[in-house]
This record gives sequence, structure tokens and C-alpha cells, in this order.
Amino acid sequence: MRTIFILLMLCSVLTPMAAQPQPSDSLMPIPSNLQMGTGRLLIDPSFSVGISGNSDPRLQRGVERFLNDLRRQTGMLPLDMKVTEPSKAMLVIRAAHANKEILELGEDESYSLEVSNTGAKLDSPTTLGALHGLQTFLQLVATASDGFAVPALSIQDKPRFPWRGLMIDAGRHFIPLDVLKRNIDGMAAVKLNVLHWHLSENQGFRVESKKFHELHEMGSDGLFYTQEEIRDLIAYARERGIRVMPEFDMPGHSTAWFVGYPELASGPGPYQIERKWGVFDPAMDPTQESTYRFLNDFIGEMAGLFPDQYFHIGGDEVNGKQWDANPKIQEFKRSHGIKNNEDLQAYFNKRVQEIVSKHGKTMVGWDEILRPDLPKNIVVQSWRGQDSLAAAAKQGYRGLLSHGYYVDLMWSAERHYSFDPLGGAGANLSPEEKQRVLGGEACMWGEYVSPENIDSRIWPRTAAIAERLWSPQEVRDMDSMYQRMEKVSRKLDWLGLTHNSGYAPMLRRIANSDDISALRVLADVVEPVKDYNR
Amino acid sequence: MRTIFILLMLCSVLTPMAAQPQPSDSLMPIPSNLQMGTGRLLIDPSFSVGISGNSDPRLQRGVERFLNDLRRQTGMLPLDMKVTEPSKAMLVIRAAHANKEILELGEDESYSLEVSNTGAKLDSPTTLGALHGLQTFLQLVATASDGFAVPALSIQDKPRFPWRGLMIDAGRHFIPLDVLKRNIDGMAAVKLNVLHWHLSENQGFRVESKKFHELHEMGSDGLFYTQEEIRDLIAYARERGIRVMPEFDMPGHSTAWFVGYPELASGPGPYQIERKWGVFDPAMDPTQESTYRFLNDFIGEMAGLFPDQYFHIGGDEVNGKQWDANPKIQEFKRSHGIKNNEDLQAYFNKRVQEIVSKHGKTMVGWDEILRPDLPKNIVVQSWRGQDSLAAAAKQGYRGLLSHGYYVDLMWSAERHYSFDPLGGAGANLSPEEKQRVLGGEACMWGEYVSPENIDSRIWPRTAAIAERLWSPQEVRDMDSMYQRMEKVSRKLDWLGLTHNSGYAPMLRRIANSDDISALRVLADVVEPVKDYNR
Repeated sequence: MRTIFILLMLCSVLTPMAAQPQPSDSLMPIPSNLQMGTGRLLIDPSFSVGISGNSDPRLQRGVERFLNDLRRQTGMLPLDMKVTEPSKAMLVIRAAHANKEILELGEDESYSLEVSNTGAKLDSPTTLGALHGLQTFLQLVATASDGFAVPALSIQDKPRFPWRGLMIDAGRHFIPLDVLKRNIDGMAAVKLNVLHWHLSENQGFRVESKKFHELHEMGSDGLFYTQEEIRDLIAYARERGIRVMPEFDMPGHSTAWFVGYPELASGPGPYQIERKWGVFDPAMDPTQESTYRFLNDFIGEMAGLFPDQYFHIGGDEVNGKQWDANPKIQEFKRSHGIKNNEDLQAYFNKRVQEIVSKHGKTMVGWDEILRPDLPKNIVVQSWRGQDSLAAAAKQGYRGLLSHGYYVDLMWSAERHYSFDPLGGAGANLSPEEKQRVLGGEACMWGEYVSPENIDSRIWPRTAAIAERLWSPQEVRDMDSMYQRMEKVSRKLDWLGLTHNSGYAPMLRRIANSDDISALRVLADVVEPVKDYNR
Repeated sequence: MRTIFILLMLCSVLTPMAAQPQPSDSLMPIPSNLQMGTGRLLIDPSFSVGISGNSDPRLQRGVERFLNDLRRQTGMLPLDMKVTEPSKAMLVIRAAHANKEILELGEDESYSLEVSNTGAKLDSPTTLGALHGLQTFLQLVATASDGFAVPALSIQDKPRFPWRGLMIDAGRHFIPLDVLKRNIDGMAAVKLNVLHWHLSENQGFRVESKKFHELHEMGSDGLFYTQEEIRDLIAYARERGIRVMPEFDMPGHSTAWFVGYPELASGPGPYQIERKWGVFDPAMDPTQESTYRFLNDFIGEMAGLFPDQYFHIGGDEVNGKQWDANPKIQEFKRSHGIKNNEDLQAYFNKRVQEIVSKHGKTMVGWDEILRPDLPKNIVVQSWRGQDSLAAAAKQGYRGLLSHGYYVDLMWSAERHYSFDPLGGAGANLSPEEKQRVLGGEACMWGEYVSPENIDSRIWPRTAAIAERLWSPQEVRDMDSMYQRMEKVSRKLDWLGLTHNSGYAPMLRRIANSDDISALRVLADVVEPVKDYNR
């Protein structure tokens, strides 16, 4: 008996202090409004969820996923646990309405969550809000000395910006579907709601086209997504409240198109898939009507494949060298009174915008596209600075901030976190102009990422960007951000993201040994290459 | 310049010694014959594979997987690397013949592998042998000071036993398909060739039956495999040279059947899915003709679903209590001159064997089924001791050893490794009798496993059992086994198995903290519960 007592004493000494969990320690993004209560709700194998009111199938499946996530996170709940009667459930969800099948920009994503000693209530106007509330609940579940618990509290929450994105560049390096899916799970966990899928580049054209086979057949090294796979990924994201916007970069960044269709280019060709990184000369010929006929057919096909309202045409980094070298293009500029290559690209953008619009979509482009002759319904994605975003808003254009959010540059989370879509020149916008700033997107450019390391580039820093886009502007405490980001990072492990779990195997590979202690010290203390430079 | 020199010196101090890799350090199972050569083959991004001779699609896909595994393991090779012309390839594979679509027991699995400074040759009579040789090659790839390399050597290899299995119990706890698939990848890596899928238990009936819906609808808590999923898993295993044998345990371990079909049972019912562990009373009624009509229809359906020649009917742990309590069964025994319950089960087994045989399959059962009135073509799986395996062989039956290979008992790898299918009484068998010992199976019983921890129960110890079943009998050095098992264990990380990567997140969950150093020390020094007892 004494032995048992001593063992128990030892256990309680060895068990780390499991004090009352503090929700502000574990939530990212921080909710817009949170009041602590008294006590806590124990989460044990008798835990149950009920759906009252609207029982949208998307919500039902979301609850099944929630239970599975809770199971993984706690390692505990019965596998056969099912959704129960609301009257008997410990967590009762009431979402007033289902969202439309195809998610739109600006859907109501708000929710409220009340947790007491005896149960929890999650209320929301829509399924999307309920899905966000379930993610908040998952983040609140913490180990206590006697099991798992959620602290008693009251949350009213809604996003600051309606567009909270992650761009993944699958053009430079192909990223397999399973890797995209686990990153979509990570996005949902931190309440991001747009996957911006960069699908064509000098180094690869990644989408099956049934109209123009040679785009993917000759431009992808065989590494492309079939249309069936794309529909599957869109459905996967939609289940999690995430829109998928495709990007086909034009007129530059387009060498891979020209391998199969050299007639689209401004130079004679032939073309090979590009094997280096940088800004390259090949660009579409904006002076030929055949270019626009091709794009009309192609965009028409893609508009049918991608249901999202928004369609990204890239538009960045055209160096104009092929245009300068082509006498017919020079003649076109003269005869049409086009003074420079910027104006020629503006002409191209206007023609493409008409095509995108004809196929029922709204055009998005990088900030180079911003020219007053484009209609006001386009969206400008600013990568070159906060000021260009504010300038667009002043001119009546809606915009997204990505400057400051390039996770491939390996900046600190703190540095990303300090950029605000309404910071810099944005702070001086009128309330009406501020409305035009839709949010922002973290950008995962693909030069130096592979399926192995992409998670470690995106996570956990993208969680800090997600907080910037969701939480109130005044949430800015860096220590708190780092502390919470670390917690979220560990929770993402349960979703199969490899940013933590991949580290030791990679070190062991380098060391060719199980003893990685010295190498780990070195790797932990050196800073990563930033901005691709020392 | 001096700084750079010092940095380089530091690096070379920090870089662990990358001496000439020793293949005997990294191979598991050890090949039957290996001679070291001089030098090594560098594996760099120019690495290429060619297939000469027979180009079986299964081999082609195997080579694609090999390249993908090599990519993951080295983190290096170009994603777009394809199989090339044999004349230009660094590794040339020549497999004389494709195997039949449905794999059979006793296929030729031999191969030879020659590696020199300039290239490698893999020759085999069949695709299966080539797949094994590719796994050997993957294990040989090691980090060197200047990249990755395979040492020059010559291997002639073939398995000692034709049946090298892993049983996974998905009856007690449902194991999702993705978890099964990554374990199949692990099996292929250590040259196991049979997945024995334990599909029904008191706690769950896990297969969709189109003839008897209520088996899976009422007996599984909704956790079952559809027939389409089963076909998919069988195809996945077949691609990797692995047969899939189903087990439907009868007449005991069958409570889950009776929830939907109480008329099959020997007691009145009604029945609920069993929620506890142990040996329970419910058993099929062996005296009713309707039982055999049901089993005939059911086994007929399953014989069509599972293409493997072998069909496991369980047959273990019938306590006879329901039979003793049923007057009609007592009367049947009297009128048929059946003396005891063992004889009654023998009568049942004989009837079931006739059904299995009628549907073109060969019956396998646990060692309780061994009775001289069964035909000699059945296979006996010994869980109660090596002696019963030898006894079966003496009586003319083929057998498998599982006694000593129960990985759920948490024995040391050393203890599993010391059991040999031809050890104990098996050592005294005649050469002809020894031929009847087909091999063995590691057994992963499911009482205390979940999708989260099952990998950590199977791996890496099952790799030691795999070596026992593949390598020559005289391979017995424990230090060498442990050293190589550790290497293989780390390589399995690249296949997505979680036995290593899951440890820290689980400790963090217990600690509710990132600081798991104290808990890790504790967890590392305490021994696991063995045999479910202290």
C-alpha cells in the first residue's frame, strides 16, 4: 500500500502542472470577443454532439470530421461514437442555414460558442460559421490532470476580412494531391478560406485540358492534375469551407504553354520546359487574334472546371524582351498608338478580362495589371507593397495583400505578422475605400519546395498570417502570438502535416546516424537563408 | 578565406563519419548470399532505371514506386525522372517473366543484384523477385560524405519460407484503409508476402456482405470495409507482391454475426456487439443445417470477393458453454455419437471445409482445427506452440508458426526473433515433413490498438520476424539484428509509418507541454506491459 502511495506521489510529481487551461494560450486566430467563465467541461469517452435545427449534409460531415479530429487529438474517444439526439448531446450545434453549394466571397462566417460545466452550445447563421466554431472548440481542448477539458467561456467571433487565402505554387514543383489535402486541413484549422492554386508556370503546366491536350501532355513532364482530381480537390476544400481559385499566369511565366503551342508565343521557338528559376523572356503574343481565340476556348473550359467566381490570370513579371524583338509586335504598337510594353500588357489584360467576364468569372491579377482602363469589378493582388493596395482601393478596385506574406522568403513569423492589409498607406483610406481591401493571402512559391518540405515552409508561420486576417486589428502581441503559434503548430501534427515530424528524419538522413544531437544544435541555431540570399 | 576554412573544418568535425557503408549494417532481412565488392555506386540526380526483357506493367509500376521511395529517402531525385532506355540506365532490371495476376503460394521470389562503381544489375526469374531486389537496393542506399551511395557488392537471394505473413485484427478495433496501406508498404519493405486480414470478431463484423446485409449493418457500428474498398486494398497489396487472405472466425469469436442473425447462434439471443475483451460464450450452432446453408452462401460470396487461394476460418477458443446449455445440441451429440465439444467442433470444421473446398478455396485455421478427419490439403496456423506445428507436419498437414510472433504481447524483438518455425520439435522433422512448414505470421491482435498506435506495435519488431522467415536459419546474431532493425525502422519513416513520429506528439499530449524531456526519460526506461500483465 505504501509502495502504491509513493508511486502515486511520484506520478503526480512527474505529471506536469495541468492548471486551468487558459483559452488565450491555445487559440489562433484569437476570436473577436471572448469572456472567460468559471469551471470547465470535461471531455471524456461519453462526449457527444448533436445537431439541432438545420441539418445540412455538409455540417453533418463536418461534425464527423470534428469527432475524428478530436479522437486523433485526444487518442481516446470511441471510434463508433456517432452524432446523437440534441437533447442528450454535450455539444449542441445550431446552424440556422446551409450555405450555397458553391461558396461565395463574403458569406457569413460568424459563430458563437458557449461552454459551461455541463455542456456547450455552438450557434451560427450558417454552416460555415459552425465549421469555424468546431475548429475553435478543437483548439480549446487541453490536457488536464484528470483527462481532457474545455474551459467555461463565451465566444462571439467573426472574421475581420472575408478573403483569407493561401497560395500554393504547383507550377514550379508539382505538389501531389495528398499534400494539398493535408494543407487544406491545416488551412481549415486556422480559419483560412481560399486556396489560390497557381497552376501554370515556365516550369510546368499542371492541369489536364481536354481542348488543348498538349498543354499538359507536353508541358508537365507527366506531372499534372486530371480534371477528375481537380473536381475531387475542390469538393474536399468546399467541405471544409474553403474556396479554390485557379491561377493561369499570362502573358509571362508561360513557357510551359509554348512547348505544345509555340504559336501562342511572341518569339519563334521551339520551346522546352524551363529548368531554371527567374524571370524569362517568353511571353504570349498580345497582337494576334489567334491568341485570344485560344484563350477564349481555354478559359471557357477552365471556367467550367473551377466553379469559383474568381479567376486569376497572373499578369506579373513580363520583361518585354520577346515583344521588343518581334517586328510585327513593334508594328502593332505603332499602328495602335501603344507607347510602351506596359501599355501593350494593359491592352492584353483588357482583352483577357473581356474573355474572363464573358465566361461569367471575375478577374484577379497581380498588381501589375492595375490600369484605369480595366473595369472596377476586378481584384488586384498586391505583391509589391502595401501602397499599391491602397492605391487600388482609392481608384475603386478591390484588393488583396500578399506583400509581406511570402512564406518562401523564410522571414520570421513576427515579420509576417506585422504586415496589415490596412497598414501603411491603407491606414489613411476612407471607410468606403477600406471596404475594398478584401484581405490577403500567404504565398508559398515553389522554387525550393518539394512534397517533403512544403509543410515546413507553410507551417506554422501561416497560422500567424491567418490570425492577422481573421482577428481584430489590435491583436498584435508578439509574445502571445509566438506562444499560441507553437501550440497550434503541435495540434497540426494530428492532421498529418509534417512540419514537425519531418525534422528528425531529415537530420538523420544528413547525419547518416541516429545520433543527431550535434546536428540538431547546429540546425537550430543557424538562421535559414532569407529572401534567397545571405 | 580563413573564416571559410574554419567553417569547413567545423563542418567536417560536425559531419558524422560517413565511412564506406557496410551492407550488413543496413539490410533486413539479410540476403541468403552476399559478397562485398570494391568501391560504390553514387546515387545522384542523374540516377536512372531501365527495364530490359519482360516489361510487365506490375514491374513498371513497381519501378515508379521505387523511384518515389528513393526520392523520399534521399529527398533529392528529380520528380520528373522517368524510366529510361536500359542501355543508358544506371540500374538495369531484367525480370524473365511476369507473375500470374493472382499471386500463388510458392512463386519464385529469388533475385540477384550486382552493384559496381559504374552501375547495377538486378536479375530475377519473376517480377516478384525484382520487387524484392528493389527493396534491397533501397535499404543499401546510405548517406556518404559526398552524397548517397550503394556499396559495390553481389547478392543472390531467395526466401527460406514461402509464407511470410502479418495478421492484422480489424475485428476488435476497426483499422482504416490508409493505415492498412502504409503497413502493406512496410511489409513490402521487409519482404513479407501475406496480409492475413482478421475480419470478424465478437466486437465487429467488418466486411460488407451483399447477401447478408445485416452482418455489416448491425454488427459493425458502421465501421466496415465496402466490397469496393476491399478490392482496392487487394489490388494495392498485389502490386507490392503481397497476397491477402481473409479470416472469418467461426464457430466462436462470432457474436457480431449474431446481432443481425441470431438464428445462427447456439443460444437464444438477442445479441449485442461485444464491448469487452476475452473469450465469450456465443458460438454458431453446428447442429442445424440452416447454419451450413448460410455459410455456404456467405463463403461463396466471399470466395468471389477475395481471390486468394487460401481462406481462413479461425476456429479458435470455443468454450462450449452455449453448446452445453442447449438441449437440442446435446441431443444431436448423443444421436450422432459425438463424445465431447472438441468432436462437435471437428464435425463443424469438416462441414465448413467441404463448403470452402466447394467454392474452390483451401481452408486455413488456428491449431484447434487439427483433427485427423480433415483432408491433408488444409493449413494449420499454430498459435499455441511450436510442437503443434511439428505434430501437424508429422500428420501430413502444412502449417504456419504464429506462436512466438504475437506482437501485441509487447515482447522484445529478441524474444520473437529466437522462435524458428523449424525450432523446438520442428528441428527433428524429416526433410519431407519440414517442407510442410510453410513459414509463419506475425500477429497484431487488436484489443489495445487504434489507428494511432498500431504502427508502433507492429514496427519495428515485425522486421525481425520477417528476417526469421526470409533469411537463412543460421542468421541469429542479436546485436546485429538490433542494429539493423533500428536502421530499417528509420527507413520505414519515409513510408509514412508513424511508429517513430507518433511518439513525441503523444508525450506532448500527456505532458500538455512542449517540454517532454522528463516524461520521455520515464517512458524510455519503463518496460511496456507484457502479455497484458505486470
